[in-house]
Amino acid sequence: MGIAMTNKRINLNADLGESFGAWTMGNDAAMFKLVDSANVACGFHAGDPLVMRNTVRTAKACGVSIGAHPSFPDLQGFGRRRMDLPLAELEAMLIYQIGALQAMARSEGGEVSHVKPHGALSNMACTDLRLAQTVARAVAAVDRSLILLAPALSQLVVAGRDGGLRVVEEIFADRAYLDDGSLVPRSHPQAMIHGAEACLEHVTRILVDGQITPISGDTLAVQAQSICVHGDGPDAVATARLIRDQLPAAGFTLVSIPAL
Amino acid sequence: MGIAMTNKRINLNADLGESFGAWTMGNDAAMFKLVDSANVACGFHAGDPLVMRNTVRTAKACGVSIGAHPSFPDLQGFGRRRMDLPLAELEAMLIYQIGALQAMARSEGGEVSHVKPHGALSNMACTDLRLAQTVARAVAAVDRSLILLAPALSQLVVAGRDGGLRVVEEIFADRAYLDDGSLVPRSHPQAMIHGAEACLEHVTRILVDGQITPISGDTLAVQAQSICVHGDGPDAVATARLIRDQLPAAGFTLVSIPAL
Amino acid sequence: MGIAMTNKRINLNADLGESFGAWTMGNDAAMFKLVDSANVACGFHAGDPLVMRNTVRTAKACGVSIGAHPSFPDLQGFGRRRMDLPLAELEAMLIYQIGALQAMARSEGGEVSHVKPHGALSNMACTDLRLAQTVARAVAAVDRSLILLAPALSQLVVAGRDGGLRVVEEIFADRAYLDDGSLVPRSHPQAMIHGAEACLEHVTRILVDGQITPISGDTLAVQAQSICVHGDGPDAVATARLIRDQLPAAGFTLVSIPAL
Amino acid sequence: MGIAMTNKRINLNADLGESFGAWTMGNDAAMFKLVDSANVACGFHAGDPLVMRNTVRTAKACGVSIGAHPSFPDLQGFGRRRMDLPLAELEAMLIYQIGALQAMARSEGGEVSHVKPHGALSNMACTDLRLAQTVARAVAAVDRSLILLAPALSQLVVAGRDGGLRVVEEIFADRAYLDDGSLVPRSHPQAMIHGAEACLEHVTRILVDGQITPISGDTLAVQAQSICVHGDGPDAVATARLIRDQLPAAGFTLVSIPAL
Repeated sequence: MGIAMTNKRINLNADLGESFGAWTMGNDAAMFKLVDSANVACGFHAGDPLVMRNTVRTAKACGVSIGAHPSFPDLQGFGRRRMDLPLAELEAMLIYQIGALQAMARSEGGEVSHVKPHGALSNMACTDLRLAQTVARAVAAVDRSLILLAPALSQLVVAGRDGGLRVVEEIFADRAYLDDGSLVPRSHPQAMIHGAEACLEHVTRILVDGQITPISGDTLAVQAQSICVHGDGPDAVATARLIRDQLPAAGFTLVSIPAL
Repeated sequence: MGIAMTNKRINLNADLGESFGAWTMGNDAAMFKLVDSANVACGFHAGDPLVMRNTVRTAKACGVSIGAHPSFPDLQGFGRRRMDLPLAELEAMLIYQIGALQAMARSEGGEVSHVKPHGALSNMACTDLRLAQTVARAVAAVDRSLILLAPALSQLVVAGRDGGLRVVEEIFADRAYLDDGSLVPRSHPQAMIHGAEACLEHVTRILVDGQITPISGDTLAVQAQSICVHGDGPDAVATARLIRDQLPAAGFTLVSIPAL
Repeated sequence: MGIAMTNKRINLNADLGESFGAWTMGNDAAMFKLVDSANVACGFHAGDPLVMRNTVRTAKACGVSIGAHPSFPDLQGFGRRRMDLPLAELEAMLIYQIGALQAMARSEGGEVSHVKPHGALSNMACTDLRLAQTVARAVAAVDRSLILLAPALSQLVVAGRDGGLRVVEEIFADRAYLDDGSLVPRSHPQAMIHGAEACLEHVTRILVDGQITPISGDTLAVQAQSICVHGDGPDAVATARLIRDQLPAAGFTLVSIPAL
Repeated sequence: MGIAMTNKRINLNADLGESFGAWTMGNDAAMFKLVDSANVACGFHAGDPLVMRNTVRTAKACGVSIGAHPSFPDLQGFGRRRMDLPLAELEAMLIYQIGALQAMARSEGGEVSHVKPHGALSNMACTDLRLAQTVARAVAAVDRSLILLAPALSQLVVAGRDGGLRVVEEIFADRAYLDDGSLVPRSHPQAMIHGAEACLEHVTRILVDGQITPISGDTLAVQAQSICVHGDGPDAVATARLIRDQLPAAGFTLVSIPAL
């Protein structure tokens, strides 16, 4: 944690805009004041058009950069159900969602600068290269200048770079890792990092050391540039606030994804 | 029908891409060879993402210009059910649909050049100025250069022009008119013009004379630049073919909507 | 409020089971301990199958009678959007929803004993006799022994009785009335009765006097047997608790709908 | 094919009622005159409430017994997409769909006598015992007298019998088999039996011999009592007609599922 790290640019992102119709989720009002970039639900797992519009308007007002957070078509399961979709169909679904959010952002004078897959789609694409390539192809088909925000060490990183996209690797503030770089499944007792202090410690160590320490096995080198705080967890606001307050003292400057 | 009409540019459009999942509708393959512009369903009344992508690809290949055909959210009712939506919500839904199709078109190297509301939304907006203004506002919010394709003599024409959009007025090849310029409701025995020849006669008269003759009442002056042939009617292909073949002899040149 | 009222049976009902997927709504755990009957969402405006099953299980465990709370097909609008549906289609939709809840109740050893339309469907059927008759016909088509729970003085009461159904008339604890017996629209400043005490006073007066005092105009005679407390209002739990605690002192016995 | 087979009762079934809203599928009018039992879509992969009502009305009029044909929630994918659903959620979805169809049947004076899972749900449950047990549990939770119609030799047969249900095993008229009793996947060149004559030959041999001859490997003993003809194939009507006409000469009497 020496002089060399000074002013390294890091991003803080969260999944926001996950309300739907009469139902609300998360604490977007608080989170928008703490994060640099928002991954905005596009209507397939959460976020109806009006929620999307209000979300991009708030992002614009708060100076938070906007990302599309596309999903499998699964409102009832919040995009967490694994599905076996023909790749051509999935690709079209991703283009659809990204385009819908682009127009919404444009209607508020903003723009979509990154894409981050949601839920089961992301989990599956992290380990299935063909799925990951489909995601990358969809993003590139819409606009080659869109940045892919992808979990560090995943197949999404590989497929995005191979597909000619700029890729930003993220780590999760509240999740422990396995020795292949994937997240410890939520069903496992050690899956979650509990409490804002522990999360800060977790991400600072990864960023400063440039490596992840899995719950077992050898350390893994990572080049993470972004930290994800899950917006719907009980400690989300406290964790985001602590990270925002404390990372600068460790030599990091928090910026939006396009400013990395 | 004198020399003055020579080379007047006219457009032939149809609603296409109205299949959904395993279900097909209409005869898009034949219609795409006959029309100049396609109004493409955007997923709310028909047209899933894969259907949309295949439709814009075909449009591109056939040199047919692409329009968004947004609807109320009503797959089961094919967008034909009247709904009472808060205007802010409707506006966001329209932005969403237009944006989704824009990205899809872009992914195939094409672009969306016009917007035409579908079904009950169109019917309601033709007579309700506040709804029509909402449609115009949504289109402008996405891109002020998008053209609004609207039924001749409707409030959509008024709202579109007042909202700063370029508006193209269309007439329907197979529908009779009331003396306020609206269509005779389908429940009325005289609603439909039957047969390709009668449809050609109907549209030619309106275009040449510059006026509509309602089933009762005085003639109405119209400045129609586009003819809609409904893609799912039994005579759709025959009507579109006859219009394409015969209109040039009446002094009209068929062109896409942006080329009008 | 004399001896004659002693032991008059009255029912306290609420709309419950209105969560959906990952989103929760209302305070069902508290409300189930306070009401006699639950109107359970059937999946069209809220309540997915798993929510429905958990809701009927809780109702069974709490000794709360189960009613179906069918809606227009409108998850995003929470069933509050007015829609113009062909009556045959609406009738089939109601049968579908009631049947789905019946099977769910049966799977937990319970049964559906009443039906109460939700939201815009209810509002429209209260004043449109043909819609009301469609509701009554759907209920009778499923099972003639189902009780129709309907707003006092509405066309639903008329249609239900004409259709051979047992009808229970309800009043709303937190809503003021117009002189035609309909509710003051939510947009009006006097629409809501605020606070548990005022709600108790409101319903007690109606029940004891046998008449409603509208915000203007003459009193209206009513034969209400049930009180609805909206489960999602800020005072819902407090109001339900106060009514349950205080109505017995006014000579009323609280019972389930089939026990009225 | 001797005297011993005389008057063995066999059932002919098809998946019907698979239209949705404005879209039609299959040739139900013709098929209803040829089959003994219909598996009716319940709204999750096809079949809206109005389609369901018209389908059960036609079944009643034609003397065809009614089965529920529940699916994963997947209109756009026609229930053919594999999904990973929590078992409790799937169980509730099945109860929901069966109940909806029961009420619909009742509204037309009919009744649901069997249940047959659709598409990817069926394919997955044929080989995954826990899924098969979930199906059986859902059916039993609604009504233990419902018959489970299941592919011969599948885990659904095992789970249904273990769960106390009456199980009827079916074979497919137009599909070849693998040596584990499962169907040859549609992607394989030998998957389909083409033409009505070949289908008749295929099913007659299985029924008479009491064994299936896979495309490779040893013969498999089967106790099939029902034959499924897919309603949407090009030869469906011809195949159903030939089977209906010719099976009696081979000593089989065609009856509905409850009459087996």
